[in-house]
Amino acid sequence: MPEIRQDPVSQRWVIIATERAKRPSDFKPPHKEKKGNVGCPFCPGHEKETPPEVLAFRDVGTEPDTPGWQVRVVPNKFAALTAGGEVAGERNGIYQTLSGTGVHEVIIEGPDHDTYFADLAPEHAVLVLKAWRQRYLQLERDERMHYVQLFKNHGPTAGASLEHPHSQLIATPLVPAAVTAEMTRIRAYWKEKDKCLFCDIVDAELKTGTRVIAFNDEFLAFCPFASRFPMEMWIISRRHQASFGACEDDQLVQLAAILQETLSRLKQAANDPPFNLVLHTAPLRQGEVIYHWHFEILPRLTIVAGFEWGTDMYINPTPPEIAAQSLNEISLKP
Amino acid sequence: MPEIRQDPVSQRWVIIATERAKRPSDFKPPHKEKKGNVGCPFCPGHEKETPPEVLAFRDVGTEPDTPGWQVRVVPNKFAALTAGGEVAGERNGIYQTLSGTGVHEVIIEGPDHDTYFADLAPEHAVLVLKAWRQRYLQLERDERMHYVQLFKNHGPTAGASLEHPHSQLIATPLVPAAVTAEMTRIRAYWKEKDKCLFCDIVDAELKTGTRVIAFNDEFLAFCPFASRFPMEMWIISRRHQASFGACEDDQLVQLAAILQETLSRLKQAANDPPFNLVLHTAPLRQGEVIYHWHFEILPRLTIVAGFEWGTDMYINPTPPEIAAQSLNEISLKP
Repeated sequence: MPEIRQDPVSQRWVIIATERAKRPSDFKPPHKEKKGNVGCPFCPGHEKETPPEVLAFRDVGTEPDTPGWQVRVVPNKFAALTAGGEVAGERNGIYQTLSGTGVHEVIIEGPDHDTYFADLAPEHAVLVLKAWRQRYLQLERDERMHYVQLFKNHGPTAGASLEHPHSQLIATPLVPAAVTAEMTRIRAYWKEKDKCLFCDIVDAELKTGTRVIAFNDEFLAFCPFASRFPMEMWIISRRHQASFGACEDDQLVQLAAILQETLSRLKQAANDPPFNLVLHTAPLRQGEVIYHWHFEILPRLTIVAGFEWGTDMYINPTPPEIAAQSLNEISLKP
Repeated sequence: MPEIRQDPVSQRWVIIATERAKRPSDFKPPHKEKKGNVGCPFCPGHEKETPPEVLAFRDVGTEPDTPGWQVRVVPNKFAALTAGGEVAGERNGIYQTLSGTGVHEVIIEGPDHDTYFADLAPEHAVLVLKAWRQRYLQLERDERMHYVQLFKNHGPTAGASLEHPHSQLIATPLVPAAVTAEMTRIRAYWKEKDKCLFCDIVDAELKTGTRVIAFNDEFLAFCPFASRFPMEMWIISRRHQASFGACEDDQLVQLAAILQETLSRLKQAANDPPFNLVLHTAPLRQGEVIYHWHFEILPRLTIVAGFEWGTDMYINPTPPEIAAQSLNEISLKP
């Protein structure tokens, strides 16, 4: 008998197929033809093919926009939002428009075209996270911006048009509806129980254990109770902390480690599936607002179709308990 | 300069790329290898390969589950929800579960494997809609069920695993979050303005005209102001009517005509793209509730990725005004 489970944060319902359950190894991700590094604008030596870098961690004595970098951040050449001008609103009867003012950047995670984030040297992975945090904090100073969405698309069917490992961030001049909805829910829970719903989720998952993938002093990785997608994983700070921007150096080191571990497990458990990695964090400059930042890893092995568009419910053929078991069975190379 | 537009119903924000705008003909839909009718369980002569039919319009004197049908409705062999038993809820700390009681059916739209809905004889298209309405009304009598989601997935990347033309419906034992959210918004608008937001959208679109695709006495087809997807279209009753189930015979005839016209235009404008067709309607047995049913056609030519999952905002490279122009330029065969 299938089960319908409710996510306590979004209050979204998910149909979990418990009978005809698919194990992660049952999925055959779409075949990817590797394009290779020929003509890749993110490879060293091609720095002039991107807009000038806004941040780089690079060897001492090397010039901007030349080789010698470990991590490089550049404006997206095909930006969804553009940086200039004030944010202006316009209302025309029932319809409302805002000017498309914003920032869209690409974080190139390393010089090697073929080394995934999961396979970077640990200290290099920490550099990637430092670039994320630094750009996040710099963009927070732009008072026109109200949210920074950090994300990573892996694989063409998950939206990655270039295969060189990279992540992206988009700063928006408004707080997105998805964020407002989560905040409203977290605030209501706090009012009722005088504690944080995400902190309670961390406690419940550590206690139950059947959905846990990994944890260290600072972070917990688990398959959420109402996973929308097979092998969906959340990585959450065990410290109650509203904004990713508040993350300290020692937290970044532990975050890099748990991200590398979970993505390695995912890659091996399901033959390098396409996925989206998505940050959920508090709106910019909100200080001690009631929120609790986390990352969501969303493998893209099922198709979002008519039922999902109509209802915002999802059909997940892999119960998170089975996904967690499969992910835990992977033996990682030391 | 891109624009950020808000959908007045869902209040979702969409980034409309006005500069690097893509015309519908710029998209290259994924190549579809036609499997053909060999081994198709929906073709005449294969009736025993599906569960027994629950409804069929068929030639007089023919037996159930044999050839001779025009439209045939069968339970989905791989149902997301299963029919038996009462709906039971369970709460375990912060987590809530409902039993997966529900109905999942397939409407096989015609005997011919290769004739799309858009290309059916007009009177046959009306039969498909009559099957939709009849099953909708029959399921409405099941008091355990609270919503019927009717939808059609066209093309493998839009979730169609079988190519024989078909649509589906899933009856759920709860009102989905997406429906509750729209109802809340419609109710607030009614309270403020003493009229229906959807009726106001119909008026605004007919007055503006730049996003209109087609209309007849009963229905309007248009590209919505804050379209999430290139060539997104909504088909809405010009009559204020809460539920699809209330649709009368003469309305069904006009709905079939406008659905066939819009889907024909879409097929020709963008080389038969994958799409989802999705009904939005009132919860079951709610009588004169404040809602206004409509269909949404969602072409799947862009990829929903990390930014969209994090924010519930969308990036649409084709402004709806340009989409409407391209769709209107198509000359339909008489």
